[in-house]
Amino acid sequence: MSEDQQDITEEAAVEEAEEDVYSLSARVLSSILFAVDTGNRTKLIELMEPLHAADIADLLEQVNAFDRRRLILLYGAEFDGDILSELDEGIRDEVIHVLRPEVLAEAVRELESDDVVDLIEDLDEESQEAILSSLEDADRVAVEKSLSYPEFSAGRLMQREVVMGPEHWTVGEAIDFMREAEGLPEDFYHMVLIDPKLHPVGHVTLGKILGAPRKQPLVELLEPGFRTFRVDESETDVAYAFNQYHMIAAPVVDEDDRVVGVITIDDAMNVLDEEHEEDIMRLAGVGEGSLADRVFDTVKQRLPWLAVNLVTAIMASLVIAQFEATISQFVALAVLMPIVASMGGNAGTQALTVAVRAIATRDLTGANVWRVIRREVLVGLTNGIVFAVIMGIVGIAWFGSPALGAVIGAAMVINLVIAGLAGIGVPVVLERIGVDPALASGAFVTTVTDVVGFFAFLGLAGVVLL
Amino acid sequence: MSEDQQDITEEAAVEEAEEDVYSLSARVLSSILFAVDTGNRTKLIELMEPLHAADIADLLEQVNAFDRRRLILLYGAEFDGDILSELDEGIRDEVIHVLRPEVLAEAVRELESDDVVDLIEDLDEESQEAILSSLEDADRVAVEKSLSYPEFSAGRLMQREVVMGPEHWTVGEAIDFMREAEGLPEDFYHMVLIDPKLHPVGHVTLGKILGAPRKQPLVELLEPGFRTFRVDESETDVAYAFNQYHMIAAPVVDEDDRVVGVITIDDAMNVLDEEHEEDIMRLAGVGEGSLADRVFDTVKQRLPWLAVNLVTAIMASLVIAQFEATISQFVALAVLMPIVASMGGNAGTQALTVAVRAIATRDLTGANVWRVIRREVLVGLTNGIVFAVIMGIVGIAWFGSPALGAVIGAAMVINLVIAGLAGIGVPVVLERIGVDPALASGAFVTTVTDVVGFFAFLGLAGVVLL
Repeated sequence: MSEDQQDITEEAAVEEAEEDVYSLSARVLSSILFAVDTGNRTKLIELMEPLHAADIADLLEQVNAFDRRRLILLYGAEFDGDILSELDEGIRDEVIHVLRPEVLAEAVRELESDDVVDLIEDLDEESQEAILSSLEDADRVAVEKSLSYPEFSAGRLMQREVVMGPEHWTVGEAIDFMREAEGLPEDFYHMVLIDPKLHPVGHVTLGKILGAPRKQPLVELLEPGFRTFRVDESETDVAYAFNQYHMIAAPVVDEDDRVVGVITIDDAMNVLDEEHEEDIMRLAGVGEGSLADRVFDTVKQRLPWLAVNLVTAIMASLVIAQFEATISQFVALAVLMPIVASMGGNAGTQALTVAVRAIATRDLTGANVWRVIRREVLVGLTNGIVFAVIMGIVGIAWFGSPALGAVIGAAMVINLVIAGLAGIGVPVVLERIGVDPALASGAFVTTVTDVVGFFAFLGLAGVVLL
Repeated sequence: MSEDQQDITEEAAVEEAEEDVYSLSARVLSSILFAVDTGNRTKLIELMEPLHAADIADLLEQVNAFDRRRLILLYGAEFDGDILSELDEGIRDEVIHVLRPEVLAEAVRELESDDVVDLIEDLDEESQEAILSSLEDADRVAVEKSLSYPEFSAGRLMQREVVMGPEHWTVGEAIDFMREAEGLPEDFYHMVLIDPKLHPVGHVTLGKILGAPRKQPLVELLEPGFRTFRVDESETDVAYAFNQYHMIAAPVVDEDDRVVGVITIDDAMNVLDEEHEEDIMRLAGVGEGSLADRVFDTVKQRLPWLAVNLVTAIMASLVIAQFEATISQFVALAVLMPIVASMGGNAGTQALTVAVRAIATRDLTGANVWRVIRREVLVGLTNGIVFAVIMGIVGIAWFGSPALGAVIGAAMVINLVIAGLAGIGVPVVLERIGVDPALASGAFVTTVTDVVGFFAFLGLAGVVLL
């Protein structure tokens, strides 16, 4: 790209960003980097002031390690704990080590307990220590208690501050209680009603409390469809329930069904977001990775998947090797064989992706799996016949051999039917045996379609053409 | 699978469902179908009663069309409007036509205006008419007004009921207002403060209102980071902002900056969910589809993508055809060539997926694109060298030819570097020219890696081996 062209695209980027919801425009970004370059702390703080912590985290992820370090040091004590929470795990450790200890301590002390837990659970031990030791005793105990719950559990996800009241309270009593309470949580949407044993009996939205007369008993205002989660329930199930049932908040209970915390929608959204991300990445054979990772980390994430693919590709080659004699007599076979395999791979990936998603959203169950398999086979058959006709014609037109056209057509039908079967069957079987279908299905399915594709095409060719 | 085995997996499914957050277990499902079979309406209603509308929608999606019809007719007037909202678009039309007109009218009348809009915007005209005519005049006008905003805009997404108050109010005035107001929305989380011209000046959470003394002015309790959306803003931007800034609700304003509605987190989550789904499906070359679609619809969704793939596969074959003479002398080339192409395709898909996600989450910007490209090239180079060594050894061991080993190794390095470049370059370019990168990148990138893979491998072989 010439410099002129680059200028134009940068201008376009600025214009685009301006009409955007996103505060971190290209212009703001370059102004910030200029302030860092010139060591202008006042200007830097002025530019960063309107940015949300999530935007500042994005900013730190987008610049290189050198600028990141300079920016953080210049920003100094302004550095907010929320920025750490929003930062990609890949560079959190790095940022924590750059922060001066007193800035780190101050930043962490502002956070709520669930955010501190979320922040430190993936850090290296040294960073964990640095953060834990900066907390006040009570907070440290709370965080350590949360960390005692299994990873990816409701217990890790919840915040410990819950707004609760006894079940016999009226609206007026609830309002008086809240008005006098000190340190209500930042965000809460319900009052949870409990019986004398601390068991939850339901919850009332703040809207209902505000809309009702002072004398009305709270139990008359309980929300329908009240749900609680156990501390040891998986965060996947929690996130699924929030999404499926459009929940805003739900209490978390311990093994004796006593309320110990509350999960709010922002926690659930984070989990959903991470899981979507994970699904996409796993389907593509990319481990957990982000743009901020260094070359070495990225290689480490991707190499294993490529190694698996190499093994499957070699298996396909072994199939081809069985037909060397056939190929040496008809080199046209070598020209056409990748088409059959490629179409099978694509059709298999289509069926597979639909199946993996349907399993994740729990739309594919024992009740409809046979119907879905039947459908995939029929879809494969139909698409197979369509492309068999097309490739038959291409085969005849290109190589002047009706027999070759017939062979590639037949191989296409076989491979697309098998692709449909494998695309649905592999993830379903993996799920049953407890393996994440998104993780391993792709390699299995393309192995099947490669092997079947080459075998059907070259095998049929050996029989028909020789 | 033998019947015994099937029994065991079904039992396992039931057990699994029981410890699950999900109310629609396999056992409940079969009991419901049994009630439908025996025409036992009382039993059916009893079984359906604890289910959330979202679960009933899932149930209707999972059974076949015949059972679906019988179930809906037996369920009769119990059919709730929320079920329609939750139903997959693929079978909404079908269900609406099965419902008796008076049941449909009653079901729709219960819904809030934004849900009606969401419900009917994708229906065929006949169903739209059926629903609109069942609404009361005021509601119909509101729905038609919403439908006048562009599709996928904030105007379509918002609900029109907003809890607002003048900016000079105190906490006490707000509470008194809400207590006397009739028809407060089902779910609301803030009071929006407006100036005399209906312009929004900020909003206060209900929690803050409840926690403050009656005399305190609301303006002192305004939430930081207040944002509004314009009616014509895209729902994608809205959903992005909700996710990025952890928002719960935000007012929507018209072109004169007057408040006309409010968007809540459940609407934003729906959009996010649909877009994630779309990204995954598009990356896999599957159009909008669901498990409930019939064979014909599924074929129609998938065929175009397979056709695109066929064209790209034929292009790769044309490259191979240039080297027919080389292949006929060394059939080993035909055996090994798919390995180079397949590794390139996989590496390209990895880079591509990371890039598409990074663009969607706005982590890949003008600020870091060159750094990311550099990284992908280095990653491709590193992985290429690793697999070049492995394949070199395999080539020598398998075919006893060091020259062949060197050729496949060199081709591997070239193709993996190109794969990294194409994987990041194609989506970035598509995004710049306004095409959804998730939609088209896959086909482009694998075409590049196939063509480069075959060309590099066979071309080098022709030079080195002949």
